[in-house]
Amino acid sequence: MVKINSSYRKLQGSYLFSTIAKKVTEFTKANPDKKVIRLGIGDVTLPLSPTIIKALHNAVDEMAHKETFKGYAPDRGYSFLREAIVENDYKKRGCSISPDEIFVSDGAKCDSGNIQEIFDVNSTIAVCDPVYPVYVDSNIMAGRGGDYLADKECYSGIIYMPCKKENGFTPMLPDRVPDLIYLCSPNNPTGAVIDRNGLQKWVDYANENGSVIIFDAAYEAYIRSENIPHSIYECDGAEKCAIELHSFSKNAGFTGLRLGYAVVPKALVRDGVSLNDLWARRHSTKYNGAPYIVQRAGEAVYSAEGQREIRGMVDYYNKNADYIKTNLEKAGFSVSGGTDAPYIWLKTPDNMSSWEFFDYLLSKANVVGTPGSGFGPHGEGYLRLTAFGSYENTVEAVDRIVNRL
Amino acid sequence: MVKINSSYRKLQGSYLFSTIAKKVTEFTKANPDKKVIRLGIGDVTLPLSPTIIKALHNAVDEMAHKETFKGYAPDRGYSFLREAIVENDYKKRGCSISPDEIFVSDGAKCDSGNIQEIFDVNSTIAVCDPVYPVYVDSNIMAGRGGDYLADKECYSGIIYMPCKKENGFTPMLPDRVPDLIYLCSPNNPTGAVIDRNGLQKWVDYANENGSVIIFDAAYEAYIRSENIPHSIYECDGAEKCAIELHSFSKNAGFTGLRLGYAVVPKALVRDGVSLNDLWARRHSTKYNGAPYIVQRAGEAVYSAEGQREIRGMVDYYNKNADYIKTNLEKAGFSVSGGTDAPYIWLKTPDNMSSWEFFDYLLSKANVVGTPGSGFGPHGEGYLRLTAFGSYENTVEAVDRIVNRL
Repeated sequence: MVKINSSYRKLQGSYLFSTIAKKVTEFTKANPDKKVIRLGIGDVTLPLSPTIIKALHNAVDEMAHKETFKGYAPDRGYSFLREAIVENDYKKRGCSISPDEIFVSDGAKCDSGNIQEIFDVNSTIAVCDPVYPVYVDSNIMAGRGGDYLADKECYSGIIYMPCKKENGFTPMLPDRVPDLIYLCSPNNPTGAVIDRNGLQKWVDYANENGSVIIFDAAYEAYIRSENIPHSIYECDGAEKCAIELHSFSKNAGFTGLRLGYAVVPKALVRDGVSLNDLWARRHSTKYNGAPYIVQRAGEAVYSAEGQREIRGMVDYYNKNADYIKTNLEKAGFSVSGGTDAPYIWLKTPDNMSSWEFFDYLLSKANVVGTPGSGFGPHGEGYLRLTAFGSYENTVEAVDRIVNRL
Repeated sequence: MVKINSSYRKLQGSYLFSTIAKKVTEFTKANPDKKVIRLGIGDVTLPLSPTIIKALHNAVDEMAHKETFKGYAPDRGYSFLREAIVENDYKKRGCSISPDEIFVSDGAKCDSGNIQEIFDVNSTIAVCDPVYPVYVDSNIMAGRGGDYLADKECYSGIIYMPCKKENGFTPMLPDRVPDLIYLCSPNNPTGAVIDRNGLQKWVDYANENGSVIIFDAAYEAYIRSENIPHSIYECDGAEKCAIELHSFSKNAGFTGLRLGYAVVPKALVRDGVSLNDLWARRHSTKYNGAPYIVQRAGEAVYSAEGQREIRGMVDYYNKNADYIKTNLEKAGFSVSGGTDAPYIWLKTPDNMSSWEFFDYLLSKANVVGTPGSGFGPHGEGYLRLTAFGSYENTVEAVDRIVNRL
């Protein structure tokens, strides 16, 4: 009789977004005249830009003719895309990453969930608290992380790095050395960023201790400040200790198109084995490439027109973030994030719990946020707001929060 | 110091297709006047059909406008696609599969590599020999399958089911009971098919022993014979023991578009846990859906026009298969597969090894096949030919084989 992977039994129910949906549905049913504005979702709302659309149509046409039809893609992605990535995301920033260190994928979520596979099952992992749940859950599924301790709302074997007001919501070096360190800057959910000096400390720490950093750069397009690195490879020695994950979701609106990439430098060696080779093997065995048409869309992102268009898109969301942050602060709320980041981390007033404030906000202002406690125990007492709505809705939601609470 | 997943060290080099490519390149360089015909690849060559192209263009246009833009897809895939799958691939065949038992994915390769994750690390697995390498390699990576025994060209912990001429190249029930059984019909690489009675025996065996069958139906569209089941759920009780994997690659030419689906019935319970729930959890944590535009293309496959077009496409390849099989047999070769299947399994003449015959065929007939030994020790002495080339090339290649060897 086959047995299931018992590690799945340790996973905690993921009720965050389903509970939100249920509460919103109930509220809407009871109050059909009220217009609810959602500032909780992480999905984008602007459509794909003209240059991307044109590239998609062109690639679809290629698929219609025998001479230009494309079947199986190269394992690591098409050269045209990997070269555009290297040129724009790395060379222009002075990072020496080569196309054969790029692995095109169907998104940063998949990569961040799968990357743990190439490491030993006994590896210790360190994550921020609060944190994007995929880092933790994918490790639990693989048998790492120990048991869930319900009273502490955490797993016994995971090193949590609390991100609190006192440390600017960025993680401090942990007390014991982890094998794998997950970092995300600009951060989901707190919107906090790690500056160049701060990130260099992590790189040095990892190199001293033989750890590997999984650096999630999904939100790097939102960075406008000079001292915040867009890539971990802007730090000295990062090619010896870091894997970087990128997404086309939030910079170019590809949440429904699915495209991302992982950077695994050839200089990153552990146990005498190149992690580049290891990830290549994983990729070629268990993955079969992103669609040709989507890779052409990714290439278009890096054209001059594409860059101008997606910059406009990100500026639009950044303006939303700024509006939320500035006006809530002005009204006396305690707010962080929202600069160089699409997420705003709002302290609940009057020591309300995350869910209490969620309910209060929904009933008083008809605005939906995401309870911070859903991202980990140190998220308790916070609410995540996102900049991905329309400007008009964002302004209205903020005005309601300011005037009705 | 982080350690790597040491199971990766047990993987054997996957040199099959790279060695083929190297040999062909060398031959072409030395013989620039010779026209080489490739009957070795598993990739399709016909372009996407008009109805699919139209659906792609329409969906791309939807992505261009705020009102119709689609972001993150539902975890299990869009309802429009899951309902079309159920209606056409199951209801019409009398199988009671429901849309919430369908999980849309980016292809059967990914699903066949990932599905093992939800089972215990100590599960024993059974595979055909020869076999599609992904079933074995993904289990080795996960720590199953024991050590590689170089002299026997196999892993110590895997149950191999030899597929030889004596058993019609279909697997026999194994001596000891496996936890997981991988079956593929029509088969890659042998082109063998399992008939309804034969498949029912496997279903009964799995239900008696608590095993789970992973049924790879990637080539079901090639079936024309009445007594060969298109789905394992045509067998009684299969919903209690089988997961089925489907691809849009070989029926509709989606190799470069990436779409597939897994069926995990709700009645499939092990250790008191629904495997449907388990796979849903895996899907929602480590995957983020197939692109909206590709799911719309998948829906178009099931339209009346789409069905007519893809039937024509498969008929075209089936005609190639038939030409290869009939004419090689007529010329005295020992051939199997090629009926209800796009693969032809050719016995090498004069007791040549697979690679000897590969070289001989390349130099004499300038035709490329795939050495059977690359799929497992019982593939030695065979060559896989595929029906995915153009009809003209297929005819020319066969004529050369018949006349020049």
